[in-house]
Amino acid sequence: MGKVLLVGAGPGDPDLLTVKALKALQSADIILFDDLVHRPILDLARPGAKRICVGKRAGRQSWGQEEINRLMVRLAGQCDSLVRLKSGDPSVFGRSGEEIAALAAAGLEIEVVPGITTASALAADLSLSLTHRACARSLRFVTAHGAKGGLPPDLDWRGLADPVTTLIVYMGGRTGPELAARLIAQGRAARTPVILAENVSRPDRDVRLGTLGDLAAGHLKAQRQGPVILGIGETFTAAGGAAQLLPAWTHSGDDRIGAAL
Amino acid sequence: MGKVLLVGAGPGDPDLLTVKALKALQSADIILFDDLVHRPILDLARPGAKRICVGKRAGRQSWGQEEINRLMVRLAGQCDSLVRLKSGDPSVFGRSGEEIAALAAAGLEIEVVPGITTASALAADLSLSLTHRACARSLRFVTAHGAKGGLPPDLDWRGLADPVTTLIVYMGGRTGPELAARLIAQGRAARTPVILAENVSRPDRDVRLGTLGDLAAGHLKAQRQGPVILGIGETFTAAGGAAQLLPAWTHSGDDRIGAAL
Repeated sequence: MGKVLLVGAGPGDPDLLTVKALKALQSADIILFDDLVHRPILDLARPGAKRICVGKRAGRQSWGQEEINRLMVRLAGQCDSLVRLKSGDPSVFGRSGEEIAALAAAGLEIEVVPGITTASALAADLSLSLTHRACARSLRFVTAHGAKGGLPPDLDWRGLADPVTTLIVYMGGRTGPELAARLIAQGRAARTPVILAENVSRPDRDVRLGTLGDLAAGHLKAQRQGPVILGIGETFTAAGGAAQLLPAWTHSGDDRIGAAL
Repeated sequence: MGKVLLVGAGPGDPDLLTVKALKALQSADIILFDDLVHRPILDLARPGAKRICVGKRAGRQSWGQEEINRLMVRLAGQCDSLVRLKSGDPSVFGRSGEEIAALAAAGLEIEVVPGITTASALAADLSLSLTHRACARSLRFVTAHGAKGGLPPDLDWRGLADPVTTLIVYMGGRTGPELAARLIAQGRAARTPVILAENVSRPDRDVRLGTLGDLAAGHLKAQRQGPVILGIGETFTAAGGAAQLLPAWTHSGDDRIGAAL
């Protein structure tokens, strides 16, 4: 039986792969990838490698998790090195837990190779810290996309509204406005800065700055079909951060933010 | 004037550098590094590069942040490529916000290169997800080391005690027991699994499993002098996760955890 590597592809820029992930791609016999994985990353695999898309993008006819698990186990028996390539970091959302459990139950050897999570690449792109000491005591990641498509039912709304927490919301394209309204209802200020970014680190990225109020009102929204990440918190306009880059962006026209900058 | 790159060194394993970080190291004229940066990473710099340690490890005589800022600005004027190499990911704690602000104020061109944050490398090392769907709705990062050496004064304790949040605590070696006691006082179960890890991804790493109660009681503690990270939450013993690796570890001897596995 071969070994299975769960490899983080990062957000899209091939240079943001880890050296270890690059080596794994270059030596894989078979690569199973999500449709969120950026294609230039697949081009780094060796020419003879078999590439299989097991995407399950929201709203499309797609593979079920059970089906992916079964396929991984079957293919692992047919090659020396199977890479399961996952967008971002395998340990942050993305159901790696279920995949690892299925592989372990089949007695397969597993190795996980970390990836740059999209929030880190976004912060780097904007030259800012996610935890500026002047305004952030913690950094919190949630997904806005529950098992049934809407917001997850059991989020800790009071905790999420903590004013000195930087909140990163993965998959926030569809439920972003409802999430923003609930944070405001729990007391997070409507003027809290919000970054909405698509296709982070890719040539077609789109990054917008607005406020939580803008997001709730539907004025700050995604322009493309790519994965959406939201960054919510004062750290996004702290000194030396995104503020200096603002003129290069389209933003949502909230005058209070314009004035604050 | 040259360009300044704030580069994430990741947790220590040179293979966990991003390709972009490796290229930055290989082309730098001068590298300023923290003493938490693992030495084999410095060995990847080109032979002629100047390496300057600006460490400020807790409890030692060390460089102040203002001093580091001034040095960066001065050296940036003397070379084409200055790399400020920071352990982990520059956007997650570590005062990058202040460094970026100082560089921006001096009119310098800045680029931030993300790094693998220690929590991701720990999860990969243990073959587990930080957000297993069965038991985690959010992932939260805090530092247990405030400006004055103790716990930061304004942490959101009620939110941190949320039972379906995976909590990652950086710099948790000294204040871990107090932090655990406060989480338990806020209602987080004493039997919540805790991972205490030192020198993640390095040859001399040490990883221990116990409970929040063990940590509060001082039974789960660091064995070395390296950086300590704590992982708190049910995800650490979820199916397919750390549980399968337990026999290889020393652990703190809490029978309830032993039995649960």
